Amino acid sequence: MNIILASTSTLFGGNYLEYLKEELAKLYQGIDEITFIPFARPGGISHEAYTEKAKDFFNQLKINVRGLHEFEDKKKAIIDAQAFFTGGGNTFLLVKSLQEQELMTVLKTNIEQGKPYLGCSAGSNIGGLNMKTTNDMPIVYPQSFDCMALVPFNLNPHYLDPNPDLKHNGETRETRIREFLTQNNVKVVGLREGNWIRRWNDLITVEGSELTRIFEPGIEPYEVVPGTRLS
Amino acid sequence: MNIILASTSTLFGGNYLEYLKEELAKLYQGIDEITFIPFARPGGISHEAYTEKAKDFFNQLKINVRGLHEFEDKKKAIIDAQAFFTGGGNTFLLVKSLQEQELMTVLKTNIEQGKPYLGCSAGSNIGGLNMKTTNDMPIVYPQSFDCMALVPFNLNPHYLDPNPDLKHNGETRETRIREFLTQNNVKVVGLREGNWIRRWNDLITVEGSELTRIFEPGIEPYEVVPGTRLS
Repeated sequence: MNIILASTSTLFGGNYLEYLKEELAKLYQGIDEITFIPFARPGGISHEAYTEKAKDFFNQLKINVRGLHEFEDKKKAIIDAQAFFTGGGNTFLLVKSLQEQELMTVLKTNIEQGKPYLGCSAGSNIGGLNMKTTNDMPIVYPQSFDCMALVPFNLNPHYLDPNPDLKHNGETRETRIREFLTQNNVKVVGLREGNWIRRWNDLITVEGSELTRIFEPGIEPYEVVPGTRLS
Repeated sequence: MNIILASTSTLFGGNYLEYLKEELAKLYQGIDEITFIPFARPGGISHEAYTEKAKDFFNQLKINVRGLHEFEDKKKAIIDAQAFFTGGGNTFLLVKSLQEQELMTVLKTNIEQGKPYLGCSAGSNIGGLNMKTTNDMPIVYPQSFDCMALVPFNLNPHYLDPNPDLKHNGETRETRIREFLTQNNVKVVGLREGNWIRRWNDLITVEGSELTRIFEPGIEPYEVVPGTRLS
């Protein structure tokens, strides 16, 4: 497999996908066209406008982008695709859309065959075992929380450290993930913005500019440096 | 109906339920014993310890507390109960637990008969139409997102305003609720900490120390003052 699962598409103060440009040139080496999956985005931007945004970026790399929503037969479009990119938004909506159109399995199979895959945020969540560690609001009810299992763990994109100044009683991200571990025997990678998971064949590492916080059942959370193998 | 759905159990720097004491004395007037529903709490505190915490507080009001987990026949315990309190934690876990034990409907019926009900955070979410506006992480998969509909809208407990200083690309609470509205024709009450919803027979108001942010399909979000009728 040849995949990147990124915490975020955009760094604070940066442009869309800018910080990943060098990595994406490697991920999509030899590719003419990427099939973009826009289904995570519930409002504010149409599937067309979202696809245009991706297209604008990939123009720089001389790669064309087509939105999966443009194809009548979406399964065939996935089978015919050279490479994929799933944009961020709401993971519940993304998973429900893929399930209803019966696209999750065919997408997984095509990525496992070696077609390059980029996920950002919600698009990264679906690369994990399941979506039970998303930060998103459950605005729609999916048929199940199972995802593509492109990596043998779960992700928490946009991982955020507790803010000691916040006079608020909501749970911290760490508390939420610890609660997940009481109910699930699954490792969780807390992926801070600026970081991504890179899978190349069987080698899975975490990359980027920040430390990454790992949560495993039965042990205290710990930090790993960029370049660390994750399995 | 005679209910309080509170944003949080505890204000920053305060003690458990302290800020609600006067209201709770009115809610539970004439009640000897409250049946406490501890199922939202996934870790860190057992059902017993969680019930003890509620018991400690209600001692001050000379009201006994028994945990629903203590009863073998929980349906009968709900039917026999004088009043209820559902504590906070994870809404997915709470809803799944109530569904698996087939307790949601019997609880709803008993509250609709006029038995006092207090919910905090997750315990408030289940008073809404559905749990699709919870902030919680989907650590388990419930049979559905439907809740008790004790009020004709949804709640967002611990409602939090955007932090302009945060250099982070995750969605704000407002963005999340707007996304919900693209998929659901349901009003959402953004309940800041310090506020609660009070239902007394057919009168539903929002009370507390803060403004409350209301989200409705098709119009811009707006703020209402304490004492405002919500339907």
